[in-house]
Amino acid sequence: MSFDPNVKIGVLGGGQLGRMMIQSAIDLNLDIKSMDPDPNAPCKHLATEFVNGDIKDYDQVMAFGATCDLITVEIENVSIEALEALEKQGKKVFPQPRALKIIKDKGIQKQFYLDNDIPTSPFVLTQSLEELHQHTDLLPGVHKLRTEGYDGRGVQVIRTEADISKGFDKPALIEKFVDYDKEISVIVARNADGEMNTYPVVELEYHPEANLVEFLFSPSSISEDIRIKARELAKKVISSLDMVGLLAVEMFTTKDGDVIVNECAPRTHNSGHQTIEANVTSQFEQHIRAILNLPLGDTAIKGASVMINLLGEEGYTGLAQYEGLEEALQIEGLHVHLYGKKLTKPFRKMGHVTLVGDHLEDLKTIARSVKESIKIKA
Amino acid sequence: MSFDPNVKIGVLGGGQLGRMMIQSAIDLNLDIKSMDPDPNAPCKHLATEFVNGDIKDYDQVMAFGATCDLITVEIENVSIEALEALEKQGKKVFPQPRALKIIKDKGIQKQFYLDNDIPTSPFVLTQSLEELHQHTDLLPGVHKLRTEGYDGRGVQVIRTEADISKGFDKPALIEKFVDYDKEISVIVARNADGEMNTYPVVELEYHPEANLVEFLFSPSSISEDIRIKARELAKKVISSLDMVGLLAVEMFTTKDGDVIVNECAPRTHNSGHQTIEANVTSQFEQHIRAILNLPLGDTAIKGASVMINLLGEEGYTGLAQYEGLEEALQIEGLHVHLYGKKLTKPFRKMGHVTLVGDHLEDLKTIARSVKESIKIKA
Repeated sequence: MSFDPNVKIGVLGGGQLGRMMIQSAIDLNLDIKSMDPDPNAPCKHLATEFVNGDIKDYDQVMAFGATCDLITVEIENVSIEALEALEKQGKKVFPQPRALKIIKDKGIQKQFYLDNDIPTSPFVLTQSLEELHQHTDLLPGVHKLRTEGYDGRGVQVIRTEADISKGFDKPALIEKFVDYDKEISVIVARNADGEMNTYPVVELEYHPEANLVEFLFSPSSISEDIRIKARELAKKVISSLDMVGLLAVEMFTTKDGDVIVNECAPRTHNSGHQTIEANVTSQFEQHIRAILNLPLGDTAIKGASVMINLLGEEGYTGLAQYEGLEEALQIEGLHVHLYGKKLTKPFRKMGHVTLVGDHLEDLKTIARSVKESIKIKA
Repeated sequence: MSFDPNVKIGVLGGGQLGRMMIQSAIDLNLDIKSMDPDPNAPCKHLATEFVNGDIKDYDQVMAFGATCDLITVEIENVSIEALEALEKQGKKVFPQPRALKIIKDKGIQKQFYLDNDIPTSPFVLTQSLEELHQHTDLLPGVHKLRTEGYDGRGVQVIRTEADISKGFDKPALIEKFVDYDKEISVIVARNADGEMNTYPVVELEYHPEANLVEFLFSPSSISEDIRIKARELAKKVISSLDMVGLLAVEMFTTKDGDVIVNECAPRTHNSGHQTIEANVTSQFEQHIRAILNLPLGDTAIKGASVMINLLGEEGYTGLAQYEGLEEALQIEGLHVHLYGKKLTKPFRKMGHVTLVGDHLEDLKTIARSVKESIKIKA
């Protein structure tokens, strides 16, 4: 274990997760290159070098990786073939391409849970809508595209047979709907030495239409028993994957006191944004510590917190204007994070706000009103 | 009061203070241009635009300012004449050039304290060493260059007449040595609406040779009475200056329970670095809030803290190497901030470390050992 600030780190994806990673990397003098297909990606001005390119293109990723010592990702939808080839060349690639392969395809991901005794909901793979008709025993259920789903896209609730036409006529999986109590998330980090550390459990509340996290609450209100179970489960997932990096494990708690895995993401995650202010070590710093094989940081919470995603207002597309920010900045313990996106569109993640304080219930009340007062329009 | 993220902000000086300001500005989508004479200044890669130029040169600062709406500084040694001309053109310049003028010349600064009933130690201006001989009544004292002093340079203790030859044969001032109890600092912010907010008092411990802050302790151990007095005094200084921005007021507490002003800096300051992790709002965010006339943030501490400056090790000049960082990263509540300086030299400020925790005395013990274990060599 030896820290070399001259290591050349490349990040595939230049969105807000990459941006917050760079913000954290600054303090360790780390130079970070970033690659993204959007020429105005949030990382553009912050990366030591910004490459405007297609992160799904083998040749372009190979060329980008050739200039780096260590390659990581802020999104899983990248050319895994290129990452495998770079790994063979002796580059460090964290998370490892084999873990990305398992996670990127939600069908393979679910099968991985079954193979590794990780509790998850019943599912069947489907190739077409036609096939979906044969699995009405799994309804009400959720139909998910195996790949390409992102930020709420590629997921469709199918309540009854009548809804089947809303599903995907592409490789997908139908998952039996879980009669869950809470949606929770545990972020776990693991470095090359095998050291693991989990963050305390958080509770998520989704936007009903956009299928995006709208509010996050920390700490969660679940029992200590279930918390321990959830954190152990997250460790089991990352060690079964033998993955180095950060893994966000989204789970359901059931009314019977069980915890089952919904899905996971092999990177920093929306369910860890509050860690910037509300935990001793942020998920972004933890990711860097993990991939550099540094000692992992303390994940303890410093206070209760609520994270609110700032989504582009419905009905507005164009140059983003922020309403209500000055008023919000008057609220004690409120922290604003804008993602540097020039253009807004409905439900686009434009930023987030974290409220930190002593009493979660008070913060929840403030959060609902903040959500109403900050509007991103065009 | 209205927040416009498209305001073009220019910062004179691209050192660590500018760098940490940019780190904070990222979250508000603010684009920051930076100007510094060092082509490899810490802000180089982080500024939206980095101009390599002389911040003391009238024409260069005018050209830089022409591209900005609002000009601020991270160092006071700049072309104030250019800032005055830019202000006349209608640009916003915070801190205002007239406040910079008063502070930049330590002779004028001391006279300002006298004129405004702000307690400070007795002093006399000197033009030459010859003149210094006429003021032996002020010995033991401190001889300070009126301008150009920075990071411990331009300050000389003169204990007896025999030391006078160590003084400055240039415009300077001799200040009677204060038999102080503690060296403390209060950072105060003020926005254009006149809203003011002070940070809690911190205690400073200087490096005996380098005359640089070596350790900072928060909260200070002084009595509540003196704390209130110090915070009120900081407000008095900034409002007497009628300044918008951030002002760091360094003070002495005397054994009689008095507080007197030593000197002040019209910008973010080394005595506020711990606010990044240990206070609700960091001094860097507060500076931005002040100059944009946004509501000022909550300055409350979240825990006890110790800040340790990481100075270049004596005897080493060249490409910086960091010893002991991995070990330090294992310490709970320890946060590393490196400043992105490629070259180290003796006593150069290369970074800082903040320890946050529940008990200041425990943190002090850890801090002394951290100071011994992290070494910056070449």
